[in-house]
Amino acid sequence: MGAAAFIAGDWGTTNLRLFLCDERGVALDSVDGPGVAALAAASSSAVGSARAGTRLDCSGIFASLVQTWTSRYGGLPAVLCGMAGSDIGWMPVPYVDCPALPQKLLDGCVALDGADVHIVPGLRCRNRLGAPDLMRGEETQILGAIRLDPGLAEGRNLVCLPGTHTKWALLQDGSVAEFITAPTGELFALLRDHSILVRSSAAGGDAADERAFDRGLRRLREHPQVQLLHLLFECRSRRITGEAGMEDPAAFLSGLLIASDVRGALALFAPGRRTVALIGAPALTRAYAAALEVESVPTRSVEGSAAALAGLAAVRSHLAQRPGPHAA
Amino acid sequence: MGAAAFIAGDWGTTNLRLFLCDERGVALDSVDGPGVAALAAASSSAVGSARAGTRLDCSGIFASLVQTWTSRYGGLPAVLCGMAGSDIGWMPVPYVDCPALPQKLLDGCVALDGADVHIVPGLRCRNRLGAPDLMRGEETQILGAIRLDPGLAEGRNLVCLPGTHTKWALLQDGSVAEFITAPTGELFALLRDHSILVRSSAAGGDAADERAFDRGLRRLREHPQVQLLHLLFECRSRRITGEAGMEDPAAFLSGLLIASDVRGALALFAPGRRTVALIGAPALTRAYAAALEVESVPTRSVEGSAAALAGLAAVRSHLAQRPGPHAA
Repeated sequence: MGAAAFIAGDWGTTNLRLFLCDERGVALDSVDGPGVAALAAASSSAVGSARAGTRLDCSGIFASLVQTWTSRYGGLPAVLCGMAGSDIGWMPVPYVDCPALPQKLLDGCVALDGADVHIVPGLRCRNRLGAPDLMRGEETQILGAIRLDPGLAEGRNLVCLPGTHTKWALLQDGSVAEFITAPTGELFALLRDHSILVRSSAAGGDAADERAFDRGLRRLREHPQVQLLHLLFECRSRRITGEAGMEDPAAFLSGLLIASDVRGALALFAPGRRTVALIGAPALTRAYAAALEVESVPTRSVEGSAAALAGLAAVRSHLAQRPGPHAA
Repeated sequence: MGAAAFIAGDWGTTNLRLFLCDERGVALDSVDGPGVAALAAASSSAVGSARAGTRLDCSGIFASLVQTWTSRYGGLPAVLCGMAGSDIGWMPVPYVDCPALPQKLLDGCVALDGADVHIVPGLRCRNRLGAPDLMRGEETQILGAIRLDPGLAEGRNLVCLPGTHTKWALLQDGSVAEFITAPTGELFALLRDHSILVRSSAAGGDAADERAFDRGLRRLREHPQVQLLHLLFECRSRRITGEAGMEDPAAFLSGLLIASDVRGALALFAPGRRTVALIGAPALTRAYAAALEVESVPTRSVEGSAAALAGLAAVRSHLAQRPGPHAA
């Protein structure tokens, strides 16, 4: 392990994770903070209205989170990706258009005024359904995943980054050709936390969870043409009518939603039997791998934090080699 | 208008409406109260856990809401439908199985111990997708709609009751043969109130709302095989990228969700060009009528409160003619 050299961070919708890194991008320490959605909610309730574009005190939050490190190692350059560059983040950073070669991404990094902080741009495309689509943070995970698994840069690869807003990205020779978003994780959390549909009477334990999840996965397959809306109420009706294995309706719901996401994406991208690469938290990539297995699609996985870190280290290395006031 | 004779109430998931009625069921006065979901949330936060089956103080709430009437007219018999009879309501009342003739519903009414209050049972069926399905309250609206529009009791009719949990019911000669639920209204409210997807920067006015709604309706039609999940992010991406007419992403979302509900239901019930009867609040029945018009399906509408009231009056009239201690 080398000396502390820079701070790397993925500032997402639902959480922020900062890493203290050595020059090669090996994490020496980490700290977690709030995502921009939580900050935006706190900020909008503070001013009494939920307006977009309310500027958050990202600068203050960032400074307080890294204080232990800066007091020990002095000022350190930082590279951030994710919602930090969004219209509800620290500073709006323009999107880079697809098809996006890694170089285009690296060149699009923007330095914050008065601080040695760079923010990685997000990507924009017109997706397969003809709509504009956006990502912030996942592009850096993809960049890192390619470093960790260079096979992803060869030919055509379908990549899935499950999360609050799951992204399905098509890579062509290592550049992001196009992608599409499904807010699967956000919908799950909303329904689990606020809906009468999945109010659970008892924790079913891990074994019950897995059965209910698997049942949800397979349920959608029984009626592939049906709208998801007409299956969601089963989370409640199957529990109320006392069906066995429905002690954990949230797990059944998770299975339904992930199956809907996976079936929809496979219909759009038709990868056939080619391996889909999953990038994300292990619990999520396992769940998506199970859904893809039901569809006979093989998968391989890259851990999401490791991918983000590798991507941020690649950005840092590029910036350090670039001439100019912000180079190390 | 006759003298005050009974209290009629529809105690739903999201609200309670009580009517003071004369003997023929004409409303003399009304008062609104909280739905059982709001009560359950308040109750579970009061005891510090979100457990199903927590008994609510429906009795106390009911008594306080009708106090003005009882102090003026003395004790009055009451007939309630809806979630009052659910496991999170006042008293669990067993479901009646479909196919459900009106008589079966009337016979299934249960009297509360120690109070002249009857609760109408809900209906249960195995829906067209093979899952158990449930309704509470809509059966009374259907009963009332048939009184207001007797043509609904002739032959086969598809009825839609849009709401928090939209119901699509197939009537055969005036009895409910089967039905299916879509939690369209609940999903809309969750996404509008809690999601980053539809955070709106400005109110677009009614005209803009209607355009965005209509665009959402037609958007799903462009890709009928797609999963709803892969269209939801457009509520955000189209606004962020500055597309015209997307000032009100909630209206676009509403169009997407209602179109998904309507397309799914039409695929399941295949009513062809036969008229679909809509029972509900005028703003909702208008929105569903617009979605059905896009699919070239004609509609007719019955106002939901009027239907509930007519149904409750029919129940009251039946109970009043029935011998026993609870007859008037």
